[in-house]
Amino acid sequence: MIDIIHRIGIKATPAKVYAALSTVDGVAGWWTNKTTGESKVGGIVTVRFRDRGAAQEKGAVELEVTELDPGKEVRWRVKSGPEEWIGTQVTFSLSRDGEQTLLLFGHRDWRQAVDFTAHCSMKWATFLLSLRELVETGKGRPSPDDLKIDNWN
Amino acid sequence: MIDIIHRIGIKATPAKVYAALSTVDGVAGWWTNKTTGESKVGGIVTVRFRDRGAAQEKGAVELEVTELDPGKEVRWRVKSGPEEWIGTQVTFSLSRDGEQTLLLFGHRDWRQAVDFTAHCSMKWATFLLSLRELVETGKGRPSPDDLKIDNWN
Repeated sequence: MIDIIHRIGIKATPAKVYAALSTVDGVAGWWTNKTTGESKVGGIVTVRFRDRGAAQEKGAVELEVTELDPGKEVRWRVKSGPEEWIGTQVTFSLSRDGEQTLLLFGHRDWRQAVDFTAHCSMKWATFLLSLRELVETGKGRPSPDDLKIDNWN
Repeated sequence: MIDIIHRIGIKATPAKVYAALSTVDGVAGWWTNKTTGESKVGGIVTVRFRDRGAAQEKGAVELEVTELDPGKEVRWRVKSGPEEWIGTQVTFSLSRDGEQTLLLFGHRDWRQAVDFTAHCSMKWATFLLSLRELVETGKGRPSPDDLKIDNWN
Protein backbone atom coordinates (compact mmCIF):
# COMPACT_ATOMS: atom_id res chain seq x y z
CA MET A 1 0.00 0.00 0.00
CA ILE A 2 1.15 3.54 -0.76
CA ASP A 3 1.09 6.30 1.85
CA ILE A 4 1.40 10.07 1.50
CA ILE A 5 3.01 11.38 4.70
CA HIS A 6 3.87 14.92 5.76
CA ARG A 7 5.15 16.55 8.96
CA ILE A 8 4.51 20.14 10.02
CA GLY A 9 5.03 22.13 13.21
CA ILE A 10 2.42 24.61 14.40
CA LYS A 11 3.05 27.22 17.08
CA ALA A 12 -0.01 26.47 19.21
CA THR A 13 -1.18 23.92 21.76
CA PRO A 14 -2.22 20.42 20.66
CA ALA A 15 -5.75 21.30 21.86
CA LYS A 16 -5.97 24.19 19.40
CA VAL A 17 -4.68 22.11 16.47
CA TYR A 18 -7.01 19.27 17.46
CA ALA A 19 -9.98 21.65 17.39
CA ALA A 20 -9.15 22.58 13.78
CA LEU A 21 -9.14 18.89 12.82
CA SER A 22 -11.95 17.47 14.92
CA THR A 23 -14.76 19.94 14.24
CA VAL A 24 -16.72 20.80 11.10
CA ASP A 25 -16.03 24.51 11.60
CA GLY A 26 -12.34 23.79 12.05
CA VAL A 27 -12.04 21.78 8.85
CA ALA A 28 -14.02 24.48 7.00
CA GLY A 29 -11.31 26.93 8.01
CA TRP A 30 -8.42 25.20 6.23
CA TRP A 31 -9.63 22.57 3.73
CA THR A 32 -12.88 23.68 2.12
CA ASN A 33 -15.44 26.20 3.28
CA LYS A 34 -18.15 23.72 2.22
CA THR A 35 -17.69 21.26 5.09
CA THR A 36 -20.77 19.71 6.67
CA GLY A 37 -21.77 16.70 8.75
CA GLU A 38 -21.11 15.34 12.20
CA SER A 39 -17.57 15.01 13.52
CA LYS A 40 -18.05 12.20 16.03
CA VAL A 41 -16.80 8.64 15.86
CA GLY A 42 -19.01 6.84 13.32
CA GLY A 43 -20.28 10.15 11.94
CA ILE A 44 -19.81 11.39 8.38
CA VAL A 45 -18.06 14.65 7.49
CA THR A 46 -18.61 15.78 3.90
CA VAL A 47 -16.28 18.16 2.10
CA ARG A 48 -17.31 19.79 -1.18
CA PHE A 49 -15.09 21.63 -3.65
CA ARG A 50 -15.81 24.21 -6.31
CA ASP A 51 -13.82 26.70 -8.34
CA ARG A 52 -13.65 30.27 -7.14
CA GLY A 53 -16.74 32.13 -8.36
CA ALA A 54 -18.29 28.95 -9.79
CA ALA A 55 -21.74 27.87 -8.66
CA GLN A 56 -21.23 24.24 -9.61
CA GLU A 57 -19.54 21.71 -7.40
CA LYS A 58 -16.36 20.10 -8.73
CA GLY A 59 -16.30 17.17 -6.38
CA ALA A 60 -17.15 15.93 -2.91
CA VAL A 61 -15.68 13.48 -0.43
CA GLU A 62 -17.52 11.66 2.39
CA LEU A 63 -15.31 10.83 5.35
CA GLU A 64 -16.27 8.48 8.13
CA VAL A 65 -14.75 9.62 11.42
CA THR A 66 -13.01 6.54 12.83
CA GLU A 67 -10.97 8.00 15.68
CA LEU A 68 -11.09 11.12 17.86
CA ASP A 69 -8.54 11.18 20.67
CA PRO A 70 -8.48 14.73 22.08
CA GLY A 71 -5.16 16.50 21.59
CA LYS A 72 -3.66 13.38 20.01
CA GLU A 73 -5.31 11.81 17.00
CA VAL A 74 -7.97 12.25 14.35
CA ARG A 75 -8.71 9.57 11.73
CA TRP A 76 -11.07 9.44 8.82
CA ARG A 77 -11.93 6.69 6.34
CA VAL A 78 -12.97 7.73 2.84
CA LYS A 79 -16.48 6.41 2.06
CA SER A 80 -17.01 8.17 -1.27
CA GLY A 81 -15.09 10.57 -3.47
CA PRO A 82 -12.43 10.14 -6.18
CA GLU A 83 -12.24 6.45 -7.06
CA GLU A 84 -8.56 6.27 -5.95
CA TRP A 85 -9.51 7.61 -2.51
CA ILE A 86 -12.23 5.14 -1.61
CA GLY A 87 -11.17 3.00 1.34
CA THR A 88 -8.07 5.11 2.07
CA GLN A 89 -7.43 6.53 5.55
CA VAL A 90 -6.58 10.11 6.46
CA THR A 91 -4.69 10.37 9.77
CA PHE A 92 -3.50 13.25 11.92
CA SER A 93 -1.22 12.47 14.90
CA LEU A 94 -0.27 15.26 17.29
CA SER A 95 2.61 15.59 19.74
CA ARG A 96 4.19 18.50 21.51
CA ASP A 97 7.76 19.78 21.21
CA GLY A 98 8.32 23.01 23.16
CA GLU A 99 6.27 25.82 21.64
CA GLN A 100 5.25 23.72 18.63
CA THR A 101 2.65 21.05 18.10
CA LEU A 102 4.03 18.53 15.64
CA LEU A 103 1.50 17.09 13.25
CA LEU A 104 2.26 13.85 11.46
CA PHE A 105 -0.18 13.62 8.58
CA GLY A 106 -0.98 10.52 6.56
CA HIS A 107 -3.18 9.76 3.58
CA ARG A 108 -2.73 6.03 3.70
CA ASP A 109 -3.51 2.83 1.83
CA TRP A 110 -3.59 4.06 -1.75
CA ARG A 111 -3.70 0.96 -3.98
CA GLN A 112 -1.08 2.41 -6.33
CA ALA A 113 1.11 5.46 -6.82
CA VAL A 114 -0.29 7.33 -9.82
CA ASP A 115 0.07 10.93 -11.02
CA PHE A 116 -3.06 11.78 -9.03
CA THR A 117 -1.27 10.57 -5.86
CA ALA A 118 1.56 13.02 -6.62
CA HIS A 119 -1.00 15.79 -7.18
CA CYS A 120 -2.74 14.99 -3.88
CA SER A 121 0.59 14.86 -2.01
CA MET A 122 1.44 18.38 -3.17
CA LYS A 123 -2.09 19.58 -2.52
CA TRP A 124 -2.13 18.13 1.03
CA ALA A 125 1.13 19.97 1.74
CA THR A 126 -0.51 23.27 0.79
CA PHE A 127 -3.61 22.47 2.87
CA LEU A 128 -1.36 21.74 5.89
CA LEU A 129 0.22 25.17 5.39
CA SER A 130 -3.35 26.53 5.32
CA LEU A 131 -4.11 24.66 8.58
CA ARG A 132 -1.03 26.22 10.17
CA GLU A 133 -2.10 29.69 9.04
CA LEU A 134 -5.58 29.10 10.43
CA VAL A 135 -4.33 27.97 13.83
CA GLU A 136 -1.55 30.54 14.15
CA THR A 137 -3.29 33.59 12.65
CA GLY A 138 -7.04 32.80 12.65
CA LYS A 139 -7.28 32.69 8.85
CA GLY A 140 -6.53 29.75 6.58
CA ARG A 141 -6.82 29.30 2.82
CA PRO A 142 -9.63 26.78 2.38
CA SER A 143 -11.13 25.99 -1.04
CA PRO A 144 -12.19 27.86 -3.15
CA ASP A 145 -9.37 30.22 -2.13
CA ASP A 146 -6.77 27.44 -1.91
CA LEU A 147 -3.42 27.67 -3.67
CA LYS A 148 -3.70 26.11 -7.14
CA ILE A 149 -0.80 23.83 -7.84
CA ASP A 150 -1.23 22.34 -11.31
CA ASN A 151 -3.65 21.80 -14.20
CA TRP A 152 -5.81 19.62 -11.96
CA ASN A 153 -6.06 22.56 -9.57
CA MET B 1 10.79 0.86 -1.36
CA ILE B 2 9.13 4.12 -0.36
CA ASP B 3 8.75 7.07 -2.73
CA ILE B 4 7.89 10.70 -2.08
CA ILE B 5 6.08 12.01 -5.17
CA HIS B 6 4.69 15.46 -5.95
CA ARG B 7 3.17 17.13 -9.02
CA ILE B 8 3.27 20.84 -9.77
CA GLY B 9 2.42 22.99 -12.80
CA ILE B 10 4.63 25.92 -13.76
CA LYS B 11 3.59 28.61 -16.24
CA ALA B 12 6.73 28.50 -18.40
CA THR B 13 8.25 26.36 -21.14
CA PRO B 14 9.81 22.98 -20.30
CA ALA B 15 13.17 24.47 -21.41
CA LYS B 16 12.96 27.15 -18.72
CA VAL B 17 12.01 24.68 -15.97
CA TYR B 18 14.73 22.30 -17.18
CA ALA B 19 17.33 25.11 -16.90
CA ALA B 20 16.40 25.59 -13.24
CA LEU B 21 16.93 21.87 -12.57
CA SER B 22 19.91 21.07 -14.76
CA THR B 23 22.32 23.89 -13.87
CA VAL B 24 24.15 24.76 -10.66
CA ASP B 25 22.91 28.37 -10.86
CA GLY B 26 19.36 27.13 -11.40
CA VAL B 27 19.39 24.83 -8.35
CA ALA B 28 20.96 27.64 -6.29
CA GLY B 29 17.90 29.75 -7.11
CA TRP B 30 15.31 27.48 -5.51
CA TRP B 31 16.92 24.85 -3.23
CA THR B 32 19.98 26.31 -1.50
CA ASN B 33 22.13 29.26 -2.45
CA LYS B 34 25.16 27.13 -1.56
CA THR B 35 25.07 24.88 -4.62
CA THR B 36 28.34 23.96 -6.30
CA GLY B 37 29.76 21.29 -8.60
CA GLU B 38 29.30 20.14 -12.16
CA SER B 39 25.85 19.40 -13.53
CA LYS B 40 26.74 16.91 -16.25
CA VAL B 41 26.02 13.18 -16.37
CA GLY B 42 28.48 11.54 -13.97
CA GLY B 43 29.26 14.89 -12.32
CA ILE B 44 28.62 15.74 -8.69
CA VAL B 45 26.42 18.61 -7.55
CA THR B 46 26.82 19.52 -3.87
CA VAL B 47 24.15 21.37 -1.90
CA ARG B 48 24.95 22.86 1.51
CA PHE B 49 22.49 24.13 4.10
CA ARG B 50 22.83 26.56 6.98
CA ASP B 51 20.49 28.56 9.18
CA ARG B 52 19.77 32.16 8.28
CA GLY B 53 22.55 34.36 9.67
CA ALA B 54 24.58 31.35 10.84
CA ALA B 55 28.14 30.90 9.64
CA GLN B 56 28.21 27.17 10.31
CA GLU B 57 26.90 24.59 7.90
CA LYS B 58 24.00 22.42 9.06
CA GLY B 59 24.39 19.70 6.49
CA ALA B 60 25.38 18.89 2.93
CA VAL B 61 24.29 16.46 0.23
CA GLU B 62 26.34 15.19 -2.70
CA LEU B 63 24.28 14.26 -5.73
CA GLU B 64 25.57 12.33 -8.71
CA VAL B 65 23.86 13.47 -11.90
CA THR B 66 22.60 10.29 -13.55
CA GLU B 67 20.35 11.67 -16.29
CA LEU B 68 19.99 14.92 -18.20
CA ASP B 69 17.44 14.84 -21.02
CA PRO B 70 16.85 18.45 -22.14
CA GLY B 71 13.31 19.65 -21.54
CA LYS B 72 12.28 16.22 -20.24
CA GLU B 73 14.16 14.67 -17.34
CA VAL B 74 16.77 15.29 -14.64
CA ARG B 75 17.90 12.54 -12.26
CA TRP B 76 20.28 12.53 -9.34
CA ARG B 77 21.55 9.75 -7.08
CA VAL B 78 22.44 10.65 -3.50
CA LYS B 79 26.11 9.82 -2.83
CA SER B 80 26.40 11.34 0.66
CA GLY B 81 24.19 13.25 3.05
CA PRO B 82 21.63 12.21 5.68
CA GLU B 83 21.96 8.46 6.24
CA GLU B 84 18.36 7.85 5.11
CA TRP B 85 19.07 9.59 1.79
CA ILE B 86 22.12 7.63 0.72
CA GLY B 87 21.37 5.61 -2.40
CA THR B 88 18.00 7.28 -2.99
CA GLN B 89 17.12 8.87 -6.33
CA VAL B 90 15.75 12.34 -6.97
CA THR B 91 13.82 12.57 -10.25
CA PHE B 92 12.20 15.41 -12.18
CA SER B 93 10.05 14.54 -15.22
CA LEU B 94 8.68 17.35 -17.38
CA SER B 95 5.77 17.44 -19.81
CA ARG B 96 3.75 20.21 -21.36
CA ASP B 97 0.04 20.94 -20.97
CA GLY B 98 -0.99 24.17 -22.68
CA GLU B 99 0.60 27.13 -20.91
CA GLN B 100 1.94 24.96 -18.07
CA THR B 101 4.92 22.68 -17.75
CA LEU B 102 3.94 19.79 -15.50
CA LEU B 103 6.68 18.56 -13.22
CA LEU B 104 6.41 15.10 -11.70
CA PHE B 105 8.89 15.01 -8.84
CA GLY B 106 10.14 11.91 -7.06
CA HIS B 107 12.46 11.26 -4.15
CA ARG B 108 12.55 7.51 -4.57
CA ASP B 109 13.83 4.32 -2.96
CA TRP B 110 13.73 5.24 0.73
CA ARG B 111 14.32 2.05 2.68
CA GLN B 112 11.53 2.88 5.12
CA ALA B 113 8.91 5.53 5.86
CA VAL B 114 10.03 7.34 9.00
CA ASP B 115 9.15 10.74 10.49
CA PHE B 116 12.11 12.21 8.59
CA THR B 117 10.50 11.00 5.33
CA ALA B 118 7.34 12.94 6.26
CA HIS B 119 9.46 16.00 7.06
CA CYS B 120 11.27 15.73 3.71
CA SER B 121 7.99 15.26 1.82
CA MET B 122 6.63 18.52 3.25
CA LYS B 123 9.94 20.26 2.72
CA TRP B 124 10.18 19.13 -0.93
CA ALA B 125 6.68 20.52 -1.51
CA THR B 126 7.80 23.94 -0.29
CA PHE B 127 10.99 23.78 -2.42
CA LEU B 128 8.86 22.96 -5.48
CA LEU B 129 6.78 26.07 -4.73
CA SER B 130 10.11 27.94 -4.52
CA LEU B 131 11.12 26.47 -7.91
CA ARG B 132 7.83 27.67 -9.40
CA GLU B 133 8.38 31.16 -7.99
CA LEU B 134 11.90 31.23 -9.39
CA VAL B 135 10.81 30.18 -12.88
CA GLU B 136 7.66 32.33 -13.01
CA THR B 137 8.96 35.48 -11.27
CA GLY B 138 12.76 35.26 -11.31
CA LYS B 139 13.03 34.89 -7.53
CA GLY B 140 12.75 31.69 -5.50
CA ARG B 141 13.14 30.98 -1.78
CA PRO B 142 16.30 28.89 -1.52
CA SER B 143 17.92 28.05 1.83
CA PRO B 144 18.69 29.87 4.09
CA ASP B 145 15.53 31.87 3.24
CA ASP B 146 13.39 28.77 2.78
CA LEU B 147 10.05 28.34 4.51
CA LYS B 148 10.59 26.59 7.85
CA ILE B 149 8.06 23.83 8.35
CA ASP B 150 8.73 22.16 11.70
CA ASN B 151 11.24 21.76 14.57
CA TRP B 152 13.68 20.12 12.14
CA ASN B 153 13.49 23.27 10.02
